[in-house]
Amino acid sequence: MNTHNLGIVKRHINRADAAAVAQLSRFGVATVHEAMGRVGLMKPYMRPIYTGARLCGPAVTVLLQPGDNWMMHVAAEQLQPGDVVVAACTADNTDGFFGDLLATSFRARGAVGLVIDGGCRDVKDLSEMGFPVFSRAISAKGTIKATLGSVNVPVVCAGAAVNPGDVVLADDDGVVVVPAAFAQTVADAAQARESLEADKRAKLAAGVLGLDMYAMRGPLEKAGLKYID
Amino acid sequence: MNTHNLGIVKRHINRADAAAVAQLSRFGVATVHEAMGRVGLMKPYMRPIYTGARLCGPAVTVLLQPGDNWMMHVAAEQLQPGDVVVAACTADNTDGFFGDLLATSFRARGAVGLVIDGGCRDVKDLSEMGFPVFSRAISAKGTIKATLGSVNVPVVCAGAAVNPGDVVLADDDGVVVVPAAFAQTVADAAQARESLEADKRAKLAAGVLGLDMYAMRGPLEKAGLKYID
Amino acid sequence: MNTHNLGIVKRHINRADAAAVAQLSRFGVATVHEAMGRVGLMKPYMRPIYTGARLCGPAVTVLLQPGDNWMMHVAAEQLQPGDVVVAACTADNTDGFFGDLLATSFRARGAVGLVIDGGCRDVKDLSEMGFPVFSRAISAKGTIKATLGSVNVPVVCAGAAVNPGDVVLADDDGVVVVPAAFAQTVADAAQARESLEADKRAKLAAGVLGLDMYAMRGPLEKAGLKYID
Amino acid sequence: MNTHNLGIVKRHINRADAAAVAQLSRFGVATVHEAMGRVGLMKPYMRPIYTGARLCGPAVTVLLQPGDNWMMHVAAEQLQPGDVVVAACTADNTDGFFGDLLATSFRARGAVGLVIDGGCRDVKDLSEMGFPVFSRAISAKGTIKATLGSVNVPVVCAGAAVNPGDVVLADDDGVVVVPAAFAQTVADAAQARESLEADKRAKLAAGVLGLDMYAMRGPLEKAGLKYID
Amino acid sequence: MNTHNLGIVKRHINRADAAAVAQLSRFGVATVHEAMGRVGLMKPYMRPIYTGARLCGPAVTVLLQPGDNWMMHVAAEQLQPGDVVVAACTADNTDGFFGDLLATSFRARGAVGLVIDGGCRDVKDLSEMGFPVFSRAISAKGTIKATLGSVNVPVVCAGAAVNPGDVVLADDDGVVVVPAAFAQTVADAAQARESLEADKRAKLAAGVLGLDMYAMRGPLEKAGLKYID
Amino acid sequence: MNTHNLGIVKRHINRADAAAVAQLSRFGVATVHEAMGRVGLMKPYMRPIYTGARLCGPAVTVLLQPGDNWMMHVAAEQLQPGDVVVAACTADNTDGFFGDLLATSFRARGAVGLVIDGGCRDVKDLSEMGFPVFSRAISAKGTIKATLGSVNVPVVCAGAAVNPGDVVLADDDGVVVVPAAFAQTVADAAQARESLEADKRAKLAAGVLGLDMYAMRGPLEKAGLKYID
Repeated sequence: MNTHNLGIVKRHINRADAAAVAQLSRFGVATVHEAMGRVGLMKPYMRPIYTGARLCGPAVTVLLQPGDNWMMHVAAEQLQPGDVVVAACTADNTDGFFGDLLATSFRARGAVGLVIDGGCRDVKDLSEMGFPVFSRAISAKGTIKATLGSVNVPVVCAGAAVNPGDVVLADDDGVVVVPAAFAQTVADAAQARESLEADKRAKLAAGVLGLDMYAMRGPLEKAGLKYID
Repeated sequence: MNTHNLGIVKRHINRADAAAVAQLSRFGVATVHEAMGRVGLMKPYMRPIYTGARLCGPAVTVLLQPGDNWMMHVAAEQLQPGDVVVAACTADNTDGFFGDLLATSFRARGAVGLVIDGGCRDVKDLSEMGFPVFSRAISAKGTIKATLGSVNVPVVCAGAAVNPGDVVLADDDGVVVVPAAFAQTVADAAQARESLEADKRAKLAAGVLGLDMYAMRGPLEKAGLKYID
Repeated sequence: MNTHNLGIVKRHINRADAAAVAQLSRFGVATVHEAMGRVGLMKPYMRPIYTGARLCGPAVTVLLQPGDNWMMHVAAEQLQPGDVVVAACTADNTDGFFGDLLATSFRARGAVGLVIDGGCRDVKDLSEMGFPVFSRAISAKGTIKATLGSVNVPVVCAGAAVNPGDVVLADDDGVVVVPAAFAQTVADAAQARESLEADKRAKLAAGVLGLDMYAMRGPLEKAGLKYID
Repeated sequence: MNTHNLGIVKRHINRADAAAVAQLSRFGVATVHEAMGRVGLMKPYMRPIYTGARLCGPAVTVLLQPGDNWMMHVAAEQLQPGDVVVAACTADNTDGFFGDLLATSFRARGAVGLVIDGGCRDVKDLSEMGFPVFSRAISAKGTIKATLGSVNVPVVCAGAAVNPGDVVLADDDGVVVVPAAFAQTVADAAQARESLEADKRAKLAAGVLGLDMYAMRGPLEKAGLKYID
Repeated sequence: MNTHNLGIVKRHINRADAAAVAQLSRFGVATVHEAMGRVGLMKPYMRPIYTGARLCGPAVTVLLQPGDNWMMHVAAEQLQPGDVVVAACTADNTDGFFGDLLATSFRARGAVGLVIDGGCRDVKDLSEMGFPVFSRAISAKGTIKATLGSVNVPVVCAGAAVNPGDVVLADDDGVVVVPAAFAQTVADAAQARESLEADKRAKLAAGVLGLDMYAMRGPLEKAGLKYID
Repeated sequence: MNTHNLGIVKRHINRADAAAVAQLSRFGVATVHEAMGRVGLMKPYMRPIYTGARLCGPAVTVLLQPGDNWMMHVAAEQLQPGDVVVAACTADNTDGFFGDLLATSFRARGAVGLVIDGGCRDVKDLSEMGFPVFSRAISAKGTIKATLGSVNVPVVCAGAAVNPGDVVLADDDGVVVVPAAFAQTVADAAQARESLEADKRAKLAAGVLGLDMYAMRGPLEKAGLKYID
């Protein structure tokens, strides 16, 4: 280890349990985020490059330098089927680090998608391939291959800490990170949460008010809410 | 009344005339905004959560606290068929104050959509429900229920002043607010404006220039425009 | 010529060679930008108003004043079939300078699209017309006709210098400007580049790593990359 | 009255009580905002053009059009000694609507400062004059005089609703608006609040913890806070 | 431990070695960031509330909820002389979580400053006290005390991962985080780096070009740089 | 010349006339911008790194790559006494491309300041040196030296087109670019404009209204302005 975590590729990482990943993949990001206690979300500027994009898998992390996608090629070799690439950058940068050639390579290695705190290009091709990408920007700006970053070190991506092997789940609502050690616990909590929702939804659809269903009238009155005409 | 308009729910509001609302609902936001004299628009960061979303109705206003959606449940009880919920916040905040459960409840009460100067989540479900939402952000971030705001007080939402009962109209071009007292006047002006547009469109399509149709050549020359080769 | 380039309409401009424009129109923005040496892009905040919008043609430039679209009407008269209108503004402004009436007029004159460093409205109508617009914002805000700008002077649009007659190409990845004098050279370079891509794509799809295909292992080792377990 | 509040100058407005304004002028913005119940603040992008700028007075409101400062001259005539000019704009715009000439005029009419949701220029001169301005931007960009706005109509300025005559107070922490009708009530509440602060400050300086002074330990424990080693 | 790190106060943390902290405090942020290998910086939106503010010390971390500063009071009890408070938030929020009363309390406990990915108020008082704060915003907006966050858990603050006890150094150039385990190593590297700078500065002041001093002419030529007249 | 203007250093440029530069240096940015016809300004996000910074001189232009300051060293050799360095970047980037060592070098070569559409660091040292810098950000982030840009090619810097040799003038109000060919004309116009201002200022200070001094009452009435009580 060194002071900066640059110039390192970690070959062996502890991926979250596959069964827990599969279970998590069935839920929405909002549900999983709530199940974790309302933490783990990336910033809302991370958006899918096409409507309906969705991914779930253990993270292979990449630390990029601004305007340089060299490490994406290094990461490709470390991918296993089902992996999600999570790419952070040492500075805010919207350059197009990723396009259809890299997507072809990542898919050939088994990757199921990309989360990148940077730009993405070739979005029409990627949409047609159905390769899901969540990015901070879309930009045709090309990148160079000159400076070392790292692969499979802990990174901060769009405000969230991600360790290699953590589960990353993304859908239209955003991106959430589940620490590998909690994958099963969170999956169970998400399941429990979702079981309750169907019943709530039915009641609300029938016209029951949240005020009554959640017994809020007392607390609201106690907090001082006044009804006037 | 108090100094801050917090902790208040006003039960009776003067909704804009239903016939005028129906008439306004047939126009686009750009047309209505022009018919009002080019005022009344919310900031352009307010965007529909799905392409083609559209709403029109009298406003039930909500004043939220950052990260807290308690008042949305209070608002549900005040809704009447055809209402639009307009939610402002006491500070800039992109948390996901609204999702499919609240949408189910609002719809059960007759609401036809939501305009929120905050975040929205469950956008896939909302799109499938066809429940139109115009928001400043999409975010899975959950909210708490701890602090009082208000319902049906005057609010500033995305830069526009909104009084309870005002007509709120939103489409792909943005969101416009028509004061209840002017609903019929503006509807008539919008109608007059639209009547003229078909004729203009036909002329322009036939190759007539705006320069000639609007008699701009004189004013441009007077302003000093020079043609060079 | 004067100190400010305002109040001028240049009638005769040197449009890029039509054959080169036609050739460039077959490539993506990312490819053309790479073929130019990774320059010429507008800022990534320029986005299509509908998915799949695409345009290519010689630029008729417009310099607007904030909140004023008078010069768009002046520009209409200068359009020739195949032209793209490129509108810059003397200050950052998101007002809706352009809508379906102007689009009808531009199309009647033969224009194939608009790139505007400002706002656009009537996006539903424009989408239905299939009139491609790339803009910095969508806004219903109307504009006035009071102050002179110019037509066919050099402008800076979304960070890119554009001269009248330059080729402007836009797709889902952004907007790129090719100086008229280099149109054929860039078209040839883009063709050469694309010819290579099919082969690369096939190799990557077959599992060959970029590390090997681009012979990166040596340079990475020399740069100090360390593999750890 | 018309639908849009444009093209109007209201000559007689109800300024907040002078004694209450004088009393409010002694407090900080944070204190007054708390005294109002934590409402009334403009967005935090409003900043003083020089450190230590400070103003307090009844508002003469101005509604500007983007890139046009005509109404600032109209407003000058409506000023009375002690007034603060509050300028809003019909669209987001950072042009330099205000400089040293207008400041000279406003001061000659007795105005004590400006709050503008737009740009300001001549900041060196204004600093030397000691004329306080709170703005969203500093910009040398000049403006025209072509389109009507209004003077002394209700406006939304930087997210806050301001009526003519309301008290506007600004310091290094931001800008707060106190409705004229509540000026005395809020001044009294601010006084009461400040009286308590000296005592609290002394206790905290002596090492007493907020946890104890505010009796937070019980509520924190009840909320589930856990101390670990 | 739980899935979310909320509702936890860790009492015992491993603060970086005091001698290393003292040594680091003598360098600038830019130097220390370079000495670490160009990593560890917070985003550049973090700015001092007054010119010349500067701090260095081991971090006591706080995880806040938007609009809620309850945990700041909890943190006060955990402070030791020389500590720096580093406050992150579960969502982007610019509310004024911190002012002169909390500063008085923190100082009484020995804290030497605050780094907060949120808003700060009472900046005039804090400047007069000489209490350094680096924040993302200045805002008078008050906060509530209703929801649990945590103290002394790992946080992501303004894009940088911070563990309790890490050294945080801030000056006019920004904020850098040095992991506790590397404090001495980085201090030594910073010292070495600074020793070289005086010599370089003297040469450059004498007119020697960086091109020659850093022997760049060869590499530039090899990269293809062309000089033209 | 090539398609991209990268990898080029132009040694001989046509600097604006020295006497005109000297004359322009006596005016403010707002005055010069007006004298040019209200064009030529960079975006208002360009700010001085210390209050009171000011510069004026012919531009030596630099085109940087994101995160790479190699070309700054190349530029140093091309500097002549009185020059201003104007640095643009091929992508939005806030890294700290410039610090006290480069400032020492630039000053030794006679440069009088820097305008950079990127980040700057060592701001305390630069302030003490009195070396004026106008930048889009302050950031300690270091840069590499790996990719070619250019020196003395036309650039777009913060939205303004700059040719080598153009006059660049910057003060607290922003940055303006005067084409070399118009330097004397603009200087004269600025002089004429300033001569008028003293008289206007005196009248306004004496209480004369702009409404009368500029004869606005007629035009306002004609535009439809209504005074109400």
